[in-house]
Amino acid sequence: MHHASDILLSLFIIFVAAQIGAEIATRIKLPGVVGEIAAGCIVGPSLLGLVVPNEPLEVLAEIGVVLLLFSVGLETRLDDLKKVGRSALLVGVLGVVIPFAFGSLWAHTSGFDWSKSLFIAAAFVATSAGITARVLQELGALQRVESRVILGAAVIDDILAMLLLGVVVALQAGGEINVGSLLVVLAEAIGFLAIIGWVGTRVMRSKSHWLDRPANPLSPLTIVLALCLGLAFLSTKFGLAAIIGAFLAGMIASETSQREKLEHQTQPLLALLTPFFFVLTGSKIDLKELASAEALWMLAVVTLIAIASKFAGGFLGALSLGKRSASIVGVGMVPRGEVGVVIASLGLTAGVFSPRTYAVIVAMSLLTAMVTPPILAWQLRRHAVKPAPDETAGPA
Amino acid sequence: MHHASDILLSLFIIFVAAQIGAEIATRIKLPGVVGEIAAGCIVGPSLLGLVVPNEPLEVLAEIGVVLLLFSVGLETRLDDLKKVGRSALLVGVLGVVIPFAFGSLWAHTSGFDWSKSLFIAAAFVATSAGITARVLQELGALQRVESRVILGAAVIDDILAMLLLGVVVALQAGGEINVGSLLVVLAEAIGFLAIIGWVGTRVMRSKSHWLDRPANPLSPLTIVLALCLGLAFLSTKFGLAAIIGAFLAGMIASETSQREKLEHQTQPLLALLTPFFFVLTGSKIDLKELASAEALWMLAVVTLIAIASKFAGGFLGALSLGKRSASIVGVGMVPRGEVGVVIASLGLTAGVFSPRTYAVIVAMSLLTAMVTPPILAWQLRRHAVKPAPDETAGPA
Repeated sequence: MHHASDILLSLFIIFVAAQIGAEIATRIKLPGVVGEIAAGCIVGPSLLGLVVPNEPLEVLAEIGVVLLLFSVGLETRLDDLKKVGRSALLVGVLGVVIPFAFGSLWAHTSGFDWSKSLFIAAAFVATSAGITARVLQELGALQRVESRVILGAAVIDDILAMLLLGVVVALQAGGEINVGSLLVVLAEAIGFLAIIGWVGTRVMRSKSHWLDRPANPLSPLTIVLALCLGLAFLSTKFGLAAIIGAFLAGMIASETSQREKLEHQTQPLLALLTPFFFVLTGSKIDLKELASAEALWMLAVVTLIAIASKFAGGFLGALSLGKRSASIVGVGMVPRGEVGVVIASLGLTAGVFSPRTYAVIVAMSLLTAMVTPPILAWQLRRHAVKPAPDETAGPA
Repeated sequence: MHHASDILLSLFIIFVAAQIGAEIATRIKLPGVVGEIAAGCIVGPSLLGLVVPNEPLEVLAEIGVVLLLFSVGLETRLDDLKKVGRSALLVGVLGVVIPFAFGSLWAHTSGFDWSKSLFIAAAFVATSAGITARVLQELGALQRVESRVILGAAVIDDILAMLLLGVVVALQAGGEINVGSLLVVLAEAIGFLAIIGWVGTRVMRSKSHWLDRPANPLSPLTIVLALCLGLAFLSTKFGLAAIIGAFLAGMIASETSQREKLEHQTQPLLALLTPFFFVLTGSKIDLKELASAEALWMLAVVTLIAIASKFAGGFLGALSLGKRSASIVGVGMVPRGEVGVVIASLGLTAGVFSPRTYAVIVAMSLLTAMVTPPILAWQLRRHAVKPAPDETAGPA
């Protein structure tokens, strides 16, 4: 009975802190999500200590970000993604290669041996689609061509990051790299995405009238929520992030005639659950480990490399859209968020990182997540909406 | 990464099992909630073992039932409850006294000493408002006078059960009963309910236009969700169940002009989260401990006493409404659900119950929860709606 009391208090504090943080951020013209992350840092263990991340809160956060990416998927059609396929692929690949190269160079010149350096560099790689998606959604910019490139690139990015992580973990453990098994993993992930994305959308397009039948006992919302949870689980089975599966589920559901109603019904779910993700993300910044000039200097360098290299990858990859759009894409790819945190945790457990390196990598991930939203918001407001070009077709 | 995968699989299985269970139950004319509990029993550890209750799932279940009682509160006004105050009080008191008396008599004649018998009897007492509320809501019967009596009585029941639990735990531990401190606990709980209920509704009635102002940055849904989590927490601090606070929050929110919109927005939250409560409830039935003629016989006797004594309390208490309504109230008070489970767990931990007694008490709690919904649904369909009388006023 007492335990229920503690957890309810945490839920209340997180929920209210998120609202206050978002409100303050909005008043000073920052995206609400920045305020939610900052609120998490304040109520978290390193300052007020009102909220301590634990397993139930992590699960709520996970459900929150899964639903967020589901709702982003609801606003995205496969055909729209296909139109920007080439740019997205280029952004995804360059956005992994450049940060990985610069990250490992920095780590090696800082005195880590090569196998550790590659592990550290892996934390520079994976873009967190959650943060960017939330900003794009807050600003109603999900229909812009840059948003589609970013979302498509985030999927590719996730596949490459997964492969890379497999490689560096194997190297660190002193194992050999089995190119054959890596190719199998790659093929499985791509196969999963292709089959679910392609078949799912096609089935939904031709069969979605079934959802509207009055004889159908389940509401469309129930069916798509089951799809969302199921694909989120399946994508973890293929080594991908749960949010990729949730995004796919949303994209499939966007083909139904019920799309608008579903978007509407998803709102209360997002209102209740996404704050847990952003507040918990913020609560993981350990300010104490960073309270030295040396640590802060390391953090500054790491963060700059992380931002510059990812921006470069996104910018170069999207250059065919023009410089302005390319710089929006570059900025949109910058946030690392929870993926960097996960890799840093792996490194800490494996003894690759010292507590300070861990704190720096986590803080870097979260700093990239905090600086991106205001810049992205400013860029999107400044540049007018650009219609999506069609890269698949010849002269239309 | 792997762990996220496991929990997502559990979420998916629970959600889908609930939908399938509810659908089958509806087809054979049972309330959906019976199907959800049965589905939990099937996917739970004692049969398929696909879902094992753990802390994150318990928290989701708790949030689910909190939101359920919040939504029930949204359909209930304080004035409506006041009108049935006298009947509700009588039902609440008799519904505690009679089951407690019969429960302790049975336990004592079965060979337990008096202090253990009183502990066991405490598990006979507390009505689980969640199950009944869900059936009433499924049937659209929350506006009926019987529903109001049941909901009012559930609040009183919870106060008394809390006091009783304090007494039996103290007795069992060999301590003395301090009447003074019990009175303080009682006064605090009643004071909490009265102040929140009375002041909250009044403030909301006079200030709810504030929610509609366009300058208000937070949506009404966000504000009432914060209220719901906050009062759920506070009510645990006053020794009451979290769902009592959530019910109060809903009742307060029902005074706003936004009530209908809020009801609408709560639906997707209920669709996602309440299945976790009912499936988890069902998953706790340990069929293996019950697989002997002796255990089954004990279960049958205990369940019969639990049902008959609670029905008698509710029926006698509500007799002023007429026999038909009184029998609806009597049946509506029968489910014990999670409260009996909690008391049984306390007893197991304290060494008062053997594993079999524990399994029997848990199974009894859940059996009462499973047999009630179909009977209640049948009664409500059979008897036409009865308008609520006004017990506070003289000749209206």
